[in-house]
Amino acid sequence: MNKRIIVSTVGKIIFLEALLMVPALLVSLFYGDGDTPGFLVTVAISAAAGILMMSVKQRSAQRMSSRDGYFIVASAWILISVIGAVPLYLGGGFGSYWNALFEIVSGFTTTGASILARPEDLGRGVLFWRSFTHWIGGMGVLVFLMMVMPMENDNSMHLVRAEVPGPTAGKLVPRMRTTSRILYGIYGIMTLVLVALLCLFGMKPFDSFCIAFGTAGTGGFAVSSAGIAGYNSLAIEVTLGIFMLLFGVNFTVYYLILLRKFREALCMEEVRVFFVIVALSTGAIALNIMHGVESIGNALREAFFQVSSIITTTGFATVDFELWPEFSKHLLVLLMVVGACAGSTGGGMKVSRVLILVKSFVAEIRQIINPREVVTVCLNGKPVDQKTLSSTRIYAAAYMILICVFTLVISLDGLDFTTNFTAVLSCFNNIGPGLARVGPMANFSVYSDWVKVILSVVMLTGRLEIFPMFLLFAKSAHDR
Amino acid sequence: MNKRIIVSTVGKIIFLEALLMVPALLVSLFYGDGDTPGFLVTVAISAAAGILMMSVKQRSAQRMSSRDGYFIVASAWILISVIGAVPLYLGGGFGSYWNALFEIVSGFTTTGASILARPEDLGRGVLFWRSFTHWIGGMGVLVFLMMVMPMENDNSMHLVRAEVPGPTAGKLVPRMRTTSRILYGIYGIMTLVLVALLCLFGMKPFDSFCIAFGTAGTGGFAVSSAGIAGYNSLAIEVTLGIFMLLFGVNFTVYYLILLRKFREALCMEEVRVFFVIVALSTGAIALNIMHGVESIGNALREAFFQVSSIITTTGFATVDFELWPEFSKHLLVLLMVVGACAGSTGGGMKVSRVLILVKSFVAEIRQIINPREVVTVCLNGKPVDQKTLSSTRIYAAAYMILICVFTLVISLDGLDFTTNFTAVLSCFNNIGPGLARVGPMANFSVYSDWVKVILSVVMLTGRLEIFPMFLLFAKSAHDR
Repeated sequence: MNKRIIVSTVGKIIFLEALLMVPALLVSLFYGDGDTPGFLVTVAISAAAGILMMSVKQRSAQRMSSRDGYFIVASAWILISVIGAVPLYLGGGFGSYWNALFEIVSGFTTTGASILARPEDLGRGVLFWRSFTHWIGGMGVLVFLMMVMPMENDNSMHLVRAEVPGPTAGKLVPRMRTTSRILYGIYGIMTLVLVALLCLFGMKPFDSFCIAFGTAGTGGFAVSSAGIAGYNSLAIEVTLGIFMLLFGVNFTVYYLILLRKFREALCMEEVRVFFVIVALSTGAIALNIMHGVESIGNALREAFFQVSSIITTTGFATVDFELWPEFSKHLLVLLMVVGACAGSTGGGMKVSRVLILVKSFVAEIRQIINPREVVTVCLNGKPVDQKTLSSTRIYAAAYMILICVFTLVISLDGLDFTTNFTAVLSCFNNIGPGLARVGPMANFSVYSDWVKVILSVVMLTGRLEIFPMFLLFAKSAHDR
Repeated sequence: MNKRIIVSTVGKIIFLEALLMVPALLVSLFYGDGDTPGFLVTVAISAAAGILMMSVKQRSAQRMSSRDGYFIVASAWILISVIGAVPLYLGGGFGSYWNALFEIVSGFTTTGASILARPEDLGRGVLFWRSFTHWIGGMGVLVFLMMVMPMENDNSMHLVRAEVPGPTAGKLVPRMRTTSRILYGIYGIMTLVLVALLCLFGMKPFDSFCIAFGTAGTGGFAVSSAGIAGYNSLAIEVTLGIFMLLFGVNFTVYYLILLRKFREALCMEEVRVFFVIVALSTGAIALNIMHGVESIGNALREAFFQVSSIITTTGFATVDFELWPEFSKHLLVLLMVVGACAGSTGGGMKVSRVLILVKSFVAEIRQIINPREVVTVCLNGKPVDQKTLSSTRIYAAAYMILICVFTLVISLDGLDFTTNFTAVLSCFNNIGPGLARVGPMANFSVYSDWVKVILSVVMLTGRLEIFPMFLLFAKSAHDR
C-alpha cells in the first residue's frame, strides 16, 4: 500500500469536511441555538488535522492501486463519521457519543434511521448538519473531492469504483473530474428546484432545505417528529414522491437528456424496470389498503408516497405502514431489498443487479434446455461481461450471508425476529424505517449502544457495497 | 423432447409407487384400521396406469437429453405426490384433498411439516405410509428406480443430476446402477440399525419403524402429537440426535469408510465444517438457554437435539424452541438456511454451497488486493471448476429471489412476517417447523387451502433444487 497517498487523500477529505461544516456553523450562529462552540471546535480541529495530513509529501509519482482506492474510501467514510458526530454529541441532545455516531452514520450513508423521538428538540445548526450529511453522502464525498481538488485521472477512477454504487462504475466523459462536475451540477440544480417548490407550497425555508437534502440524498431525516405528514399538504407530498423517484434514477439519464439524446435515455432498461416496479407496487398496495381509507384516491396517494420512499431507500413516511395489511408490509420489505437504480443516490441491491440475477437464472434454464447454444445475459441490449456477472453474483451471495450474520448478532439484544431482520435490511440498504419495533413511527433507540455501533457498521458496509469495509482488514501479499 | 421415453420412465415410477405402497397396505390390513380399501384402490389404479404408460414403445435408441431428465424428475415427483395423497384423503382424517396433498408432499420432500394437530387419530396404515414417503424421498425415488430396473447409464446420469441434491452430482463408481445400489444399501442398513436401537430403548416396533424412516430421510413426521418428547427417554433422544447427523452427512464418506479409505473420508472438508457448525451452534444455544433449564447438561441435551434436527432439516423437536431466547431462535433460522451436506438425505442450501459462496467472497477480496494473482476457489483441496462456481452463485441468487417472492405471495393470507418467512424457509429447505404460528408445537393448518398448495410447490422446488420445477414450463428452441 502507498501509505503516503492514503494519508494525504484522507487528509483532504477531512479538510473538506471542515469546509462543508461551515454552512451548519453559520446556521447555528444565525439562529443562536447555542451549538456554535461545538461546531467551531470541530471545524478548527478537523481543518488543522486535514492540513497536517495533506502536508505529507509524496516520494515518487502519485500512483494509487485499486486496493489503495478501496482503503481510502472506507477509512475516509469512517473518519468523517467519527468527526461529524462531534457537534451532535457536544450539542447535548443525543445523550451518548454512540447515539450521535449512529445518527451521523445514518446521515452520511443516507439511511435516515434515527434514535430520536423528537428531532425538533435539537438546535437548528445540528438539524441542518444532520440533513446536509444526506446530501453529501448521497452523491459521494470522494466524488465531491474530485470536483474541487485536482487529482490524477487513474487515481480518481479507483476511488469512484469503490464509492459509487452499482455493478459497474460509469464514467460519463473520459475525465473523472468533468464527470464529477456534471453529476454534482445536475444534483445541485435538482435540489435547488426542489427547495424552491417546497417553499412555494408553503414550507418554511429552513425545513425546505433540510427536507430537500433528505430527498436528494434519498436519506430521510425529517426535522420534526410529525415527519412529512406534519406539513399536511397534498402538493408537498406529491412533489416529494416524484422527486424521490427522480433522485432514485440513474443519473446517466439526465446527462443523456442534457445532450438531447432522448432516445438513448428512454432505452435505459434499468430505469424502465424501476418505474414498472413502482407502478405495479403502488397499484397492488392501493388495492390492498383500500378498505382502511376513505377513497381510492387516498389509497393511491398513500401507496405511491410509501412505495417511492421505500424503493428509493429514502425512508420518509406519511402513514404508519406498520398498521397496513400484511401483504403491503411484505411488499415493502421486498422493495427494500430491490432498492433504486445504480448510479443514483439511492441504496439497496440496485435494480440492475436484480435484473442481472434474474436474467442469469433464466439464462441457466435456457442453457439446460439448449446445451449447445451460447447463452448470454444482456442489459440495456448489450451483453454483460463475465467479470460483472461473476462479481454481481458474488455480491448477492455476500449480501445474503451478511444480512443473516448481522441479524443473528443483534438478536443477542433480545428483540424479535421481524424487528431485527428488518432493522438490518433497512440499515444495510440505507432505507431508514423497518417493521415492528423499528417501524416508521418508531425509532432505533430500542437497541443497546453496542447494537447501534454494529448497525453503524452495517450502514457503512451497505453504502460502500461490502468490499471496501472488508478490505480494511485484509492483508495483501505485498504487505506480508 | 423425447416424449416416449418420458412417458415410459414416469410410468415406471408410478408402477414403483404402487409396489412401495404395498407394505402400508399390509400394515393397514394387519391393524384392521379400515383404510385398507383406500390403499387397495390406489395400488390397483397406479399399477394399472404405470403398466399402461410403460408399454409405450421406443421408436429408436432410448436416448434422453439432459432436459428430458429434468422434465421426468419434476413430473414424476408431482405425480407420485398426487397419487400418494389419495389413501390419506380416502382415510378421511384430512378433511380436504389439499390437506392430504400438502401432507404427502411434505412426506416425499422430507419436510415433515404437518397440518395435523393429532396424528395419532390416523389409521396405522396411513401413518406408516406417511413416514415411509420420507424414507423413499430422502434418497430419491429415481435413484430407487435405477436400482431395481435396468436403464442406460447416460440416461441415469441425467436423472441423478436432476434429483440428487448438491452443487455437483457425485458418482461413487462409473456405473450409476451400482452407485444407487451402494447408496441404498448403506441407507437401508443404517435405517435397520436405528430401528433395532429404538426398539432396544423401549420404543414400540411400529413407532420405531416410523420414527426411523423420518430420521433416515431427515423428514420429521412423528406418530403422535407429543412427538419425540413423548417417549421421555434420554437414550432415544441421544440416539436420534446422533443418527440425524449421520444421515445429514455426505454418503460418500460411508462409501470411503467401506473401502477402508479412512484418510480420504476424514478429509471431506464439507463434513468437517458441518460438524464444526453443529458443535459451535450447540454450545452457543446451550449457553443462551442455560437460565431457563435446571442444569448445563439439560441445556446441552436440548440444544444438541434441536440443532441436529434443524441443520439436518429433519424437524423433530423435543422442546418448544419458540419459547427460547431470541438469539437461539435466530440461530436456528440461520441453520435452516445452511442445511445439511450435499449427497445426504438432508435439505437446505447445503454446507458445500455455503462454503463455495463464502470462499468466492474471500477470493473476490483477494483478487482486488492482488489484481495480478490468479485466485481460485478450492473445496476438499481441489479447485472448483468455473461451471460449478457459476451455477452455485446463480442457485444462491435464485434461492434468495424465490424465498422473497413466495413469502410475498403467501402474505396475502394475512399472517405475520415471521410466520410467513420462516414457513417458506422451512418448506423450501424441507425442514418442517418454522417460528411463531408455525413453530414446533404448532402446525400448518393456520394457512388457507391455496397457501397449502403454494407451499407444496415450494417444498418440491426446494427438494428438487429449483431447476427441474422451472424447466417444466420452459420451451426449448427445438419445441418452437
